[in-house]
Amino acid sequence: MKRGMENKNKGEKGGKTKNPASRVIRHRGDFSWRGVRPARYKLAGKGEHWASASRHLLVAGGKGERTKFHLRYFELAPGGFTSFETHAHEHVVIVANGTGEVRLGKKRYEVGPMDAIYIAPGQPHQLLNPGDAPFGFFCIVDAERDRPVVLTEGKPSRGKSRGGRPSASCELR
Amino acid sequence: MKRGMENKNKGEKGGKTKNPASRVIRHRGDFSWRGVRPARYKLAGKGEHWASASRHLLVAGGKGERTKFHLRYFELAPGGFTSFETHAHEHVVIVANGTGEVRLGKKRYEVGPMDAIYIAPGQPHQLLNPGDAPFGFFCIVDAERDRPVVLTEGKPSRGKSRGGRPSASCELR
Repeated sequence: MKRGMENKNKGEKGGKTKNPASRVIRHRGDFSWRGVRPARYKLAGKGEHWASASRHLLVAGGKGERTKFHLRYFELAPGGFTSFETHAHEHVVIVANGTGEVRLGKKRYEVGPMDAIYIAPGQPHQLLNPGDAPFGFFCIVDAERDRPVVLTEGKPSRGKSRGGRPSASCELR
Repeated sequence: MKRGMENKNKGEKGGKTKNPASRVIRHRGDFSWRGVRPARYKLAGKGEHWASASRHLLVAGGKGERTKFHLRYFELAPGGFTSFETHAHEHVVIVANGTGEVRLGKKRYEVGPMDAIYIAPGQPHQLLNPGDAPFGFFCIVDAERDRPVVLTEGKPSRGKSRGGRPSASCELR
């Protein structure tokens, strides 16, 4: 039994390869993965740069994968939220870390670990972390997808109104 | 805040609909989900019917979803294993419950919660549960995909050799 072969990818060239290699993408135990560098993502807050949202591209074509979908992990720090947005492509979310909220149109639902969410085409939606601990989730999308339209109606104020807590806005595209 | 709206799907008709509805797919806390009936899956063992492998279709087009991928959760009971197989389509696996093994060609790797696995096109592969507790994982695949070829070379004997433990073989297709 081995716990090696972390993110090997023979023949990778310029981010694309004809022969992507199988790989085990090791979880470090803290919702980060070996060989996957998290990106801080579309940080907002009136020009401030809060370390409140991160995106981890687990399988997204960068190593030559040809899947018609991308697998990403997002994490929102307390007070963080994604853009309230709509688009034609669908989202499938699996909550993995902590609890948070999903807004689907005018309704909000509390979600926790291993809850899944299907977000339909054209559904205005948003993910929010009103809690005190990180809220992390996998988000699976089609590899080819349209750009989101950010909605301003009902823009949440909580991210900026919680006593100086950091806030983050990110598109889930 | 609501914890309702479980698997609602307005206008569903014959498993397909023009307007799929967003939905929260609630985890019951035991790696089953409300509204998702697990199927026992490709059970083997010389004609015996062991309750050792189950498949949960979380998002797989059955409610009108148009994603170019399907999200399933598989669970292997102790001693269970999937077919040793190959196919042109890729697998992306996220381990969610317990620990197990993935075989990639001639090598085996121990995997645990939140490890991810990318299985490349044409890669002979197998998932196995040599342990004493359930081994469960999400498996994401392209919605359009080829049929697996089951490989007999090196077929594992452990499933049948562990003192009468149930064994299960299933394709991950």
